[in-house]
Amino acid sequence: MSKPRFITFEGIDGSGKSTQSRRFAEHLQTQGADIILTREPGGSPGAEEIRQLVLTGDPERWSAETEILLFTAARRDHLEKTIQPALAAGKTVICDRFADSTRVYQGATRGDLRMMVDQLHSLMIEREPDLTFIIDMDPAIALERGLARKSGEDRFEDFGLSFQETLRHGFLALAHADPKRCVLIDGNRTPDQIASEIAAYA
Amino acid sequence: MSKPRFITFEGIDGSGKSTQSRRFAEHLQTQGADIILTREPGGSPGAEEIRQLVLTGDPERWSAETEILLFTAARRDHLEKTIQPALAAGKTVICDRFADSTRVYQGATRGDLRMMVDQLHSLMIEREPDLTFIIDMDPAIALERGLARKSGEDRFEDFGLSFQETLRHGFLALAHADPKRCVLIDGNRTPDQIASEIAAYA
Repeated sequence: MSKPRFITFEGIDGSGKSTQSRRFAEHLQTQGADIILTREPGGSPGAEEIRQLVLTGDPERWSAETEILLFTAARRDHLEKTIQPALAAGKTVICDRFADSTRVYQGATRGDLRMMVDQLHSLMIEREPDLTFIIDMDPAIALERGLARKSGEDRFEDFGLSFQETLRHGFLALAHADPKRCVLIDGNRTPDQIASEIAAYA
Repeated sequence: MSKPRFITFEGIDGSGKSTQSRRFAEHLQTQGADIILTREPGGSPGAEEIRQLVLTGDPERWSAETEILLFTAARRDHLEKTIQPALAAGKTVICDRFADSTRVYQGATRGDLRMMVDQLHSLMIEREPDLTFIIDMDPAIALERGLARKSGEDRFEDFGLSFQETLRHGFLALAHADPKRCVLIDGNRTPDQIASEIAAYA
């Protein structure tokens, strides 16, 4: 067996991250790999408690800075309680969203927040994924999909097309800045086509 | 009227911080000052929500690092929503515990956490009080007082005498390291004697 990997899926809302992370997990399982499929925000009992705190009630009651601290607390818990123990037990971890989402979303909201997110990450999280799939797609299509499955936890999907375009550029910039870790995937295709491209990284 | 000040009270559990901060607030009010009396953890609706999250349920479910992030999130909210608006409105803010408590408590638990607390403070809080009263007293007496008023939120008072002695040394070190901001108060006296010494700083 190969070394257990920490693999993340990133991209704008509605880009198919959840579908593709599940399909890649299933593909690896058919090859006999031991897989943990997880997601952010949340992914551990403590992180889920923090997620509930952030996502319920009036979202305007937290400043961006306080929210970043809460998400970093949730991520630290997720890393300690779910991701690191699984890797230590020889499992591959597939995670739907991780630190890149915070970088891109907060950076798109206010440029000065991006440096804060990076400094907090260096101080409190440190760990980067071994491999990140960034699913790039046309925000008009992604937004349509996102709106089609509003779930009550959709505050991140409530921003409209121009914000999604800013996010798309943020994810593209990340992919270009760290090509060793990030694989850019063209999401403007059928789920089967995308899954079969990603399967090559098994 | 003098410039509004941000004044904090610090010290080990049972040292009389709450009593003395209330008495000093009352003293300033009799002089006509506009006062906000607040405390940590908590002090704003959002910070209280985070406080509830940390103080209820199994305290062992968070690591020290996650807990520091949660307390920093609460402090950021308290600062933004309560302390800074009051100062901006010309009020004096008196706060029972602030960042020094996190520095000393976490530093006493694990030395490496102290640097993390300081770095997080520099990044996400920045603001220091204008004046801090550090009430120093014999931990044996303080512990007795602390245990005498167990409140259900007493997890910080559950550590025993030798931990309280470590905390005492932590607060003394802080007072010596920052004599411009910190005033060391001998807490081994009657509340009246202590209040009258503090009143001189009105």
